[in-house]
Amino acid sequence: MSPDRPHPLSPEHPLGHVVIIGPGLIGGSLGLALRRGRLARRVSGVGHRAQTLEEGCRLGALDDFTLHAGDVAPRADLVVLATGVNLIVRQAAELLPLLKPHAVLTDVGSVKGVICAAAEPLYSAAEPARAVFVGGHPLAGSEKRGIAAARHDLFHGALCILTPTPRTDPAGQGLALVRRLWLALGARVLEMDPVVHDRLLAEISHLPHAAAACLVNAISDEAHAVAARGFLDTTRVASGDPHLWAEICLANRESLSRSLRALARQAERLADALGRGDAEGVTGLLARAKERRDALERRTAP
Amino acid sequence: MSPDRPHPLSPEHPLGHVVIIGPGLIGGSLGLALRRGRLARRVSGVGHRAQTLEEGCRLGALDDFTLHAGDVAPRADLVVLATGVNLIVRQAAELLPLLKPHAVLTDVGSVKGVICAAAEPLYSAAEPARAVFVGGHPLAGSEKRGIAAARHDLFHGALCILTPTPRTDPAGQGLALVRRLWLALGARVLEMDPVVHDRLLAEISHLPHAAAACLVNAISDEAHAVAARGFLDTTRVASGDPHLWAEICLANRESLSRSLRALARQAERLADALGRGDAEGVTGLLARAKERRDALERRTAP
Repeated sequence: MSPDRPHPLSPEHPLGHVVIIGPGLIGGSLGLALRRGRLARRVSGVGHRAQTLEEGCRLGALDDFTLHAGDVAPRADLVVLATGVNLIVRQAAELLPLLKPHAVLTDVGSVKGVICAAAEPLYSAAEPARAVFVGGHPLAGSEKRGIAAARHDLFHGALCILTPTPRTDPAGQGLALVRRLWLALGARVLEMDPVVHDRLLAEISHLPHAAAACLVNAISDEAHAVAARGFLDTTRVASGDPHLWAEICLANRESLSRSLRALARQAERLADALGRGDAEGVTGLLARAKERRDALERRTAP
Repeated sequence: MSPDRPHPLSPEHPLGHVVIIGPGLIGGSLGLALRRGRLARRVSGVGHRAQTLEEGCRLGALDDFTLHAGDVAPRADLVVLATGVNLIVRQAAELLPLLKPHAVLTDVGSVKGVICAAAEPLYSAAEPARAVFVGGHPLAGSEKRGIAAARHDLFHGALCILTPTPRTDPAGQGLALVRRLWLALGARVLEMDPVVHDRLLAEISHLPHAAAACLVNAISDEAHAVAARGFLDTTRVASGDPHLWAEICLANRESLSRSLRALARQAERLADALGRGDAEGVTGLLARAKERRDALERRTAP
């Protein structure tokens, strides 16, 4: 290891004081992984419900908690915002005056454009000794929510996308620290522009969710009455929290509406081929989908 | 039990000789369930690959097998066509001269309109002592195929739709026997018109399949490169056999193309709401989908 390259996180080289704001499934899993791996000296939780935070302590995800960020933020080396997209935008601004110089702020929000556009000018434009912000998004989770569903190995093998911008110091401590964090938790780390992130996530995450909702809404009440297990399996994500998902969809509205129209065009195209009784065309569209999906399955196999 | 009501199938009141044509996942599971429950005196398999049929015997799904339907059909009390939609249409016609009077022919095809339209006139128009046909469709299975995936409990709790038509004798032995068969295997039995069946199945089964293929085809290669587990889970059915599915989609082309256009309209509607930044509209569409799907989940809970 070259002398100027930072150590990977380990019990011998742990993070200092980590503050997780909004520890639910993602933040709680982060806390569990850090504490179980002895990768941080202290993990504090901040939230608005003491009961949830107490549960976080009981589950081993947190060392302690407070209802007020101001109690712990000034001593934090790393703050992770694990709340919703709109709240992350607000909290990033509110935390700025509380953080010590060179502290690192990151987040796990599902949409990065609006978050980075709001947070980065605040953090990078300021004095050089100010705290730094690096956007992040671990692609992990499920339709389950809340700290009770947290797992220490949630990020193992998952992809975590970091979204540095031209304002981010590519050789700075902030980016290096957030990268070391996710690597230590077993994630693969990819860096991309926030706008590219949002476009790709619209396609692979927000579109499947929206499409499942459209599918459920497209079928008749009569059909609902005979729907079986297969239909439920295909539309599982449509049972996610509509408010949470509406927030994500709206924060990524431009890319997502484009993807939804691409889906509509594909559906019309297949309907046209069926209408013509075009066996070759129909088989071709289904074969192409199978080929692409199977390739993906092979690539993401554990 | 009233004296004129037939006994449920049981080891004391088993079927006679059952012939399963094309024993794969569905036909094999049927054979396993019949033999394990001692619900038939003999179960013969007919197919075109001896190796598969030998495996069926080894797994306990079949007592014996032949490559030629003519060897066993003349002695069969019940013949089950478990091949693909187009083949079922052809085989139903071919079997007619082979079957003994009052024998019962049924099938498990995923589309019922074309099958019933072809088979019923042949079977019901004939002399009164001829074999009878009753269309059926057990809604069970998975993306797995082949007799190796067969399970004796595959139909337990599943819905099996029977599609008698005005040509079917509602009090006849054929319908009663097929109904008793599926009830004995733990399925819930529902009767409906073949055309209604196809319309509903287009919505709950063929549309989700086609939509998953459209989703995979709608996204860019770049997005494929970052697609994670969640995307694979949502699009699982798109990995089904494209030839098998093209056959199903084409056999039900009218209903399915209508359903695909309904999906396209829903996608455009959500895209429009996003384009307007209409938070209430977006939340409303997602909330409606969640509500409908959750209701379904509760209803189909085991």
